[in-house]
Amino acid sequence: MSYSVEPAQGGVTAPGGFRSASLHSGIKAKTGALDLAVLAADTVGTAAGLFTTNLAKAAPVLVSQRHLAKSGGRARAVVVNSGCANACTGDDGMANALRMTTETAQAIGCAPEEVLVASTGVIGVGLKMDRVVPGIRGAAAALARDKGAEMARAIMTTDPFPKDHAVVVRTSRGHFHVGGTAKGSGMIEPNMATMLGFLTTDAAVPPALLQRALQESARRTFNAITVDGECSTNDCVFALASGANGVTVDEELYPALQAAFYEVSKALAIGIVRGGEGATKLVSITVTGAREWAHAERAARTIANSLLVKTAIHGGDPNWGRLVAAAGRSGVPFDLSSAAVHIGGIVLFENGQPHDANAERAAAHLSGKEIDIELDLGTGGAERATIWTCDLSAEYVRINADYRT
Amino acid sequence: MSYSVEPAQGGVTAPGGFRSASLHSGIKAKTGALDLAVLAADTVGTAAGLFTTNLAKAAPVLVSQRHLAKSGGRARAVVVNSGCANACTGDDGMANALRMTTETAQAIGCAPEEVLVASTGVIGVGLKMDRVVPGIRGAAAALARDKGAEMARAIMTTDPFPKDHAVVVRTSRGHFHVGGTAKGSGMIEPNMATMLGFLTTDAAVPPALLQRALQESARRTFNAITVDGECSTNDCVFALASGANGVTVDEELYPALQAAFYEVSKALAIGIVRGGEGATKLVSITVTGAREWAHAERAARTIANSLLVKTAIHGGDPNWGRLVAAAGRSGVPFDLSSAAVHIGGIVLFENGQPHDANAERAAAHLSGKEIDIELDLGTGGAERATIWTCDLSAEYVRINADYRT
Repeated sequence: MSYSVEPAQGGVTAPGGFRSASLHSGIKAKTGALDLAVLAADTVGTAAGLFTTNLAKAAPVLVSQRHLAKSGGRARAVVVNSGCANACTGDDGMANALRMTTETAQAIGCAPEEVLVASTGVIGVGLKMDRVVPGIRGAAAALARDKGAEMARAIMTTDPFPKDHAVVVRTSRGHFHVGGTAKGSGMIEPNMATMLGFLTTDAAVPPALLQRALQESARRTFNAITVDGECSTNDCVFALASGANGVTVDEELYPALQAAFYEVSKALAIGIVRGGEGATKLVSITVTGAREWAHAERAARTIANSLLVKTAIHGGDPNWGRLVAAAGRSGVPFDLSSAAVHIGGIVLFENGQPHDANAERAAAHLSGKEIDIELDLGTGGAERATIWTCDLSAEYVRINADYRT
Repeated sequence: MSYSVEPAQGGVTAPGGFRSASLHSGIKAKTGALDLAVLAADTVGTAAGLFTTNLAKAAPVLVSQRHLAKSGGRARAVVVNSGCANACTGDDGMANALRMTTETAQAIGCAPEEVLVASTGVIGVGLKMDRVVPGIRGAAAALARDKGAEMARAIMTTDPFPKDHAVVVRTSRGHFHVGGTAKGSGMIEPNMATMLGFLTTDAAVPPALLQRALQESARRTFNAITVDGECSTNDCVFALASGANGVTVDEELYPALQAAFYEVSKALAIGIVRGGEGATKLVSITVTGAREWAHAERAARTIANSLLVKTAIHGGDPNWGRLVAAAGRSGVPFDLSSAAVHIGGIVLFENGQPHDANAERAAAHLSGKEIDIELDLGTGGAERATIWTCDLSAEYVRINADYRT
């Protein structure tokens, strides 16, 4: 089956059969700041989810996991708030997360287990339900096709800009859309999930295929980014399929769905990194020459999380020694005498020898906004992996030293 | 056997039978900056070493490992330079590290394999041997008992202050001294070694006991600190025993030697953290309630390396949610409903519930220079581990973004 995946207008409501609404409920102190959103399908569709592997799971994560299991992969809506993570909030937090789903279900007319819930913001603070409940009712009453962009803003915390993306997939059996939005700026090193992410499609997709498409695309997108090596208590990404445009995804169409999920997820994931707390540069770390993919991935992740690498990139310093040192401590096979480092395609270290004459050209590449780094482990394998990260600036420290105060 | 361990004057030459000398050889650009030191025993004694586990080992690490193996745990001297790590320098680097030992051996009159070598500084830059060789000859000619403090300064790179320590051990079979010096400020998360560390004793100690004492004390000191989660290419810590004062350590005296090594190593290790790049606070992270020591250690290390924890401490924010989130992602058993967090002995989270009324008192503790954090994993075990770390400041970013430029 041949297919094409092309960019489309809009975000999470680009696919047919979805509406959303966002408003300022009062969770965030700043007047008018969007802090609550409802995304709803016109009828109950299928759903899939990936969740944080952190053992300190927030209440909304636990509730959404249960609802997906109970509904057998079917959902009508997602309700999400920013400004409060509802994490480490004990029994009250569980009751509040559950109530967010029952209020949403009542307002739009479905079963509570057909509603998924997500929260993001400060850990350890309870939700102000006297603001959340009227907010849910107000949003449910205002659902519209053209409000996808507002949802991208309503889920932001320290994000410097909203992130959404959509594509249209054309196949000989018809076309369908995939759209999505995501947030995340700090505490970003998802592990089998991301910060909050929401994907939609107007194809009809059986739950198992939807889950598979979400997982496979997340492995190389949401799970291949790191801002600060932190895995949150609240990470989750949901996919909802409305089936509104009549195309049903089966095994034959699955590659097209998978490709579209990958495109949308990659755009959102890179957006998260580009908008990382204090970030001034988007950095792609590719590790090659590995005998196993997991080796390449682990080395790339170690480099991407190295404070010395991230500060050197921030300073525009082609300090390849820090790249080699990070690879060497990553716990995977590494052969210094055959290893190589390229920055912006320029060789700086190869076969055990520095190429310092190239440092100036590499520094010029590092002065840009999009940085490419490639490290060969020197172990002679053909496996490779890419992790996207950002530089570490004094602004990151300022943001996180002052976050609550 | 009862014994006492008491503080003593001096550092690496406090134990009898050792002399040292330090000078400016010209490796560092700054006029007069000490950059080369020789530490020598009056006669050949025993020696032990711990080395970085980084696979990108620097030339001096490889040479010292071979020399210790070849000499069967005997050494006469250590030669060390700062300002250049001699790492990732290929065959020339190996030849230069070896030459540092042969020049030292010739100058003081011993076999090359009885000399250990260490380097610290920038990775990927070759040693200027036309400056190093005269430097070694000059230092070897100037060895003196009273120059231990100079060596503590000669091994510094970005360290804000020198670190040395000494103790006297009194036993019914006589007394002996243990002294030491260490350097390290960034790229600090040793793994079975530290940045550079040098311990001396005037007891006679068989090589196997010396190695055991070094390893056991390093596990809870040099290997229990982290500044930035980076494990260097050059980490090593050496112990030399001169036997100058006639006491021989055997199994009966071993606990006294071990206690003294622990005291000196702990003082040096904490000094490294206190002088961490950009550090403004010394932070002790203790994890309790673990069923295995390794669980407590891993959770404590994860918390100690968490950028969000380190920036919160820098900002004086009692953000216990970040501590819980770090423990939850550390990969060890963790039970949120029974976990607890104390900052400065003040409970902030317990049995799944925040104690926010205590936040102000905890913030007052965080405004100090020495911070105590305790997290109970909630799994009901009796094991505990402590990791020392520092806060993360904008100054760390400034230092490392500008290190070479």
